[in-house]
Amino acid sequence: MKVFHTISEIREFVRAAKGRGESIGLVPTMGYLHDGHLSLVRRAREENDRVVVSVFVNPLQFGPGEDFERYPRDLGRDSALAAGAGADAVFAPEVAEMYPEPTLTHVTVDGLSEGLCGASRPGHFRGVATVVMKLLNIVSPNRAYFGQKDAQQATVIRRMAADLNLDTSIVILPIVRESDGLAMSSRNVYLTPEGRRAALVLSSSLRLASEIVDGGERDAASVRRAIVAGISAEPMARVDYVAIVHADNLKPLDRLAGRVLIALAVFIDKVRLIDNVVLDLDESAADGAR
Amino acid sequence: MKVFHTISEIREFVRAAKGRGESIGLVPTMGYLHDGHLSLVRRAREENDRVVVSVFVNPLQFGPGEDFERYPRDLGRDSALAAGAGADAVFAPEVAEMYPEPTLTHVTVDGLSEGLCGASRPGHFRGVATVVMKLLNIVSPNRAYFGQKDAQQATVIRRMAADLNLDTSIVILPIVRESDGLAMSSRNVYLTPEGRRAALVLSSSLRLASEIVDGGERDAASVRRAIVAGISAEPMARVDYVAIVHADNLKPLDRLAGRVLIALAVFIDKVRLIDNVVLDLDESAADGAR
Repeated sequence: MKVFHTISEIREFVRAAKGRGESIGLVPTMGYLHDGHLSLVRRAREENDRVVVSVFVNPLQFGPGEDFERYPRDLGRDSALAAGAGADAVFAPEVAEMYPEPTLTHVTVDGLSEGLCGASRPGHFRGVATVVMKLLNIVSPNRAYFGQKDAQQATVIRRMAADLNLDTSIVILPIVRESDGLAMSSRNVYLTPEGRRAALVLSSSLRLASEIVDGGERDAASVRRAIVAGISAEPMARVDYVAIVHADNLKPLDRLAGRVLIALAVFIDKVRLIDNVVLDLDESAADGAR
Repeated sequence: MKVFHTISEIREFVRAAKGRGESIGLVPTMGYLHDGHLSLVRRAREENDRVVVSVFVNPLQFGPGEDFERYPRDLGRDSALAAGAGADAVFAPEVAEMYPEPTLTHVTVDGLSEGLCGASRPGHFRGVATVVMKLLNIVSPNRAYFGQKDAQQATVIRRMAADLNLDTSIVILPIVRESDGLAMSSRNVYLTPEGRRAALVLSSSLRLASEIVDGGERDAASVRRAIVAGISAEPMARVDYVAIVHADNLKPLDRLAGRVLIALAVFIDKVRLIDNVVLDLDESAADGAR
């Protein structure tokens, strides 16, 4: 497996592959790979002739005071893991390679970027959309792979791809969890042992919500209250948001119907974690309808 | 020559050409082609195996009350002219093909879009950058051709291409003028015979400015005053803006030095016309230094 640090090198790799008629799968990551990322790499391996994993901690999607500086980085480990999962190349540019001067150009996806994580992280999805656009232009893959853990990001990127007529298929794959339910995240490494235990409140409160909805509850406020109560029972946890929205347009719902995204962000001490579940309900579902 | 109306058709045309190892040149236009457009088509013909001309009056770059509805359209004439200049295909989508639903995604180029035409046409360059991004993703050309007549547009697109790592070379070609100096524009068709004569004030005042600068003048306010005086001498003309800026970053200059863009927009009755000239001066030029 090859590790490239410059745009011209990875472009040459892709050009040679395309010249042989090969298809390209791209897995864009910020590195510090876990099994969630590797599930994307494995799927890309099945569906493409060549698999490129990008590893780039993108300053544009971090706000002031966020964890850009201390975000975990370990390219040697990432390269070994990517190779093990079937990657042909890792593209790991420095910030100066991606942003030789501050970008004046941004890609915005209005209406999908402002709520949920966007409310506490203004500019975050503008940074994500812009860097994904850059990476897609650099690698020009046939398919690009993202995780459902970042549900809002997946929605933003899918919409950007449709609106801008990208010639890349956007593939979203399910959340990968630890055996006890914690959604895998590079930021889990920030957790203390007590925090690691407390962090189970994210997945457990989402499981609770799913059970309540399975039992017939369709009132969003009631479901939300149950989740907030569940999180509040954990002293180390503080709710950032609990959102019950339509999975496609991220608009808040009063009653649960259709494809419903229940998404939350919770601070465990100072570590901000996210998790979500998508429920496929009848469009016209009412209390007790199931 | 082929005329395509759908994205899938033009993509298939491009895919087949690329499969034969052919290069693609794209000339994005709003149609009602004139010799300025055709100079782009001819250059694209020289530099590429296949030439695509897009004809699309993009609603996204028109403000409320602007001339989107009455912008001149004549696809039959455009197709014949494009074919005559060497185009292999015209891509002429309907609005519903390009925007099946209102786009949530926009491409913005901050710092280059707000002044000059952007001041009187807020949102214009966001609309331009977004549709150009879409067209580039649809056609994925090796080269795309634009005219220097739209100087600010050229600067915005060049910067977008650099910032977003587009794999398309942006080629900017000189203004083409009528024999009496009027810059060619699809909007010249709006002019009455009296307006057509009055419109000469744009190019003549720019020629006057060039002569003053040739004579050694480097004070931007003095040059600007001379241009405004020249335009004001024409009763049918009303200045929208006269800008003296650095050609690359569009920042206003107090003194003329380096690559200087002198750009103006003038209303002739209700018809808004633009024109510009770029002067290559010594970086440290002072009064009488030449």
